[in-house]
Amino acid sequence: MLIVQKYGGSSLGSAGHLLNVARKVKAAVDQGYQVVVVVSAMGDSTDALVGLAGQMSTVPSARELDQLLSTGETQSSALMAMALEQMGVPAKSFSGRLAGIVTTYDYGKARIEQVDPKELRKALAVGLTPVIAGFQGVTQSGDVSTLGRGGSDLTAIAVANALGADRCEIYSDVAGVFTADPRIVPSASPLDILSYDEMLELASQGAQVLQTQAVEFAKGQQVPIYARSTFSDEPGTVIAESDSMEKPAVTAVALNRHIAKLGLIGVPDAPGVAALLFGELAEQGVNVELIIQAVSHNQLNDIAFTIEEQDVNKAEPVVTECLKKMGGQSLVIDTEVAKVSAIGSGMLGRPGVAARVFQALASGGVNIQMIGTSEIKISCIIARADAEKALAAIHDAFGLGASEEMLEE
Amino acid sequence: MLIVQKYGGSSLGSAGHLLNVARKVKAAVDQGYQVVVVVSAMGDSTDALVGLAGQMSTVPSARELDQLLSTGETQSSALMAMALEQMGVPAKSFSGRLAGIVTTYDYGKARIEQVDPKELRKALAVGLTPVIAGFQGVTQSGDVSTLGRGGSDLTAIAVANALGADRCEIYSDVAGVFTADPRIVPSASPLDILSYDEMLELASQGAQVLQTQAVEFAKGQQVPIYARSTFSDEPGTVIAESDSMEKPAVTAVALNRHIAKLGLIGVPDAPGVAALLFGELAEQGVNVELIIQAVSHNQLNDIAFTIEEQDVNKAEPVVTECLKKMGGQSLVIDTEVAKVSAIGSGMLGRPGVAARVFQALASGGVNIQMIGTSEIKISCIIARADAEKALAAIHDAFGLGASEEMLEE
Repeated sequence: MLIVQKYGGSSLGSAGHLLNVARKVKAAVDQGYQVVVVVSAMGDSTDALVGLAGQMSTVPSARELDQLLSTGETQSSALMAMALEQMGVPAKSFSGRLAGIVTTYDYGKARIEQVDPKELRKALAVGLTPVIAGFQGVTQSGDVSTLGRGGSDLTAIAVANALGADRCEIYSDVAGVFTADPRIVPSASPLDILSYDEMLELASQGAQVLQTQAVEFAKGQQVPIYARSTFSDEPGTVIAESDSMEKPAVTAVALNRHIAKLGLIGVPDAPGVAALLFGELAEQGVNVELIIQAVSHNQLNDIAFTIEEQDVNKAEPVVTECLKKMGGQSLVIDTEVAKVSAIGSGMLGRPGVAARVFQALASGGVNIQMIGTSEIKISCIIARADAEKALAAIHDAFGLGASEEMLEE
Repeated sequence: MLIVQKYGGSSLGSAGHLLNVARKVKAAVDQGYQVVVVVSAMGDSTDALVGLAGQMSTVPSARELDQLLSTGETQSSALMAMALEQMGVPAKSFSGRLAGIVTTYDYGKARIEQVDPKELRKALAVGLTPVIAGFQGVTQSGDVSTLGRGGSDLTAIAVANALGADRCEIYSDVAGVFTADPRIVPSASPLDILSYDEMLELASQGAQVLQTQAVEFAKGQQVPIYARSTFSDEPGTVIAESDSMEKPAVTAVALNRHIAKLGLIGVPDAPGVAALLFGELAEQGVNVELIIQAVSHNQLNDIAFTIEEQDVNKAEPVVTECLKKMGGQSLVIDTEVAKVSAIGSGMLGRPGVAARVFQALASGGVNIQMIGTSEIKISCIIARADAEKALAAIHDAFGLGASEEMLEE
């Protein structure tokens, strides 16, 4: 049985942490598994390199930044191979290049085009445990590229797929995926299983367990992901295709505090107004999520929408300019909002779930400003001050908390 | 005019140092030179990585050590390219691989087999300043290899030769090559010019200005080397082919404190004794330098020889075993010795130079234990306690000190 194991930076914060991870890998090898290891950079080392780059240049070239940042993972992979060898596990470090990971030319956020696992197979065939530097690949012309923050998850899943691995284990400092963030909702409980779509919604709603692109890749290739903790032996969460019929309506809830609401007041009700506004925002790379348009009076509309809070400075001049062109009245920016989301593939074809979410918020005294839904998600924009209360209210309403029995375990 | 400039770790100790070097490169570019930059790892970063490796494994694999240690130079090259770009000098970082440096498979001390400067030429042709990560290359099979400590000098000289550069400038924290180590002989003065052979003798006698292999390479290809300080505008020393007839008998003196003398007492005077002893030592990778064999009495010889002090632990069991086989009497190990050397291509065909060296030592009250010579070098083994006195005595006897006039400048 072939397993890909990925260890993140928080599992590799020091020499002692590296040795601890090497022991975990050795344990799997001793149990008879073939193991391929993928490692991130040690602890905060990537941040330190980003800091140095900032001292060299106000806007470092993306190519040079990738040459620089990829070295952290290279170091981890060589050190891990040394540690494994010392423990009697023959090992060999692999750069992204040697692992056959070819990417697009989008330095800093390259996408994997192809994985040629020829050299990995060779190493496995002679009993070596490959240790791959995550986060990195090479372009067709041979320059080092990186896959964006959290890209080591993608490395692991892409390699697992290319090798036809039986599973991909993603180790972090959290024991899997929870029904809610345990720091906010103390009764949150770990999930045994989650579908790819649920994980995708959770990841894009602010849960930071797995990189979104990695989950998309796993979904496409149907690679089962095991999200586990480096620091415990708990089983963690399996992310795999699952039958939505047998599932509860809501599997987990998520909170995103880092959003902002923009309101355009008194915009003339003319064709093409929305196209102009959202076209310009898209051109600036601003991601718009929920949109509400309400006819107010005298043929004037109000348009409200949400964006990531970090994009406010980019969006404001664009929106102001559009408002002027349209002959609108004013712009209101509210950064004191948050988004709570209820997610579950079990809500497919099950009516009344949204109503239960709204009821839970009403009972908690939380006012809903905007609503957005997908097939397996209901999101509400609320005042940021109500965020924790709202999350707990939905979590409770769907009985997601650990039962008394579970908490006692 | 094309110049290769190499900057060592002491010139790159911090972000501020990196920016200072970038300004020096920019100054050369602004003067109209085409510049190729070669950089070492920042300050002591290589030592930090060696320390981490030591925590992973008692004997880290040489391949993995090379993957690890090469990252320091990669980081420097990317950071330097960013700094240059920020200053308006279009630049591009080059790994050893991209610079076309192919080496042997001797990880940790690989030798350059070939430099294919195709990509470097391409970059120069479009006005980019290449910044090469020193110290690294790749094997024929594509794994990263390193050239040994000080290997960035070799990178610079090999690249200078491959590109047909007009000169190669090696920057460090020392303003060139001195007649003696200024920390030991305060009156030591910088040399304007030095031949490759003199530099080779100096480097192998313990002067740490330039890597020996790099000088050998430069000699073979007749690349003029300019050894200069990063921190001053002094001209430094030119290492190039020079006419020995016009030169003083002794150009510089060197001191090596890190040697040990081994004496085998009462060895039977039989054929093959020396062959056995030095054959075994060579097999263990112990480098033997000076050898003296003296017939004492009753057909018994004494054999004395010097080795690097760090090799004593490796040599002792080998020599003890040989002594037993030969039926010799005893082994004496003296680590309280040092070697002083007088070097000068001007001593070629000029008799009496050795006598002047011995006279200088005698006048200084320094006892000579062993003597070794080459065509352009005279070395004496003396008590380590006399080392500084001996160095100064020879330095003075050949008038190498800066004249009063020079010191006043």
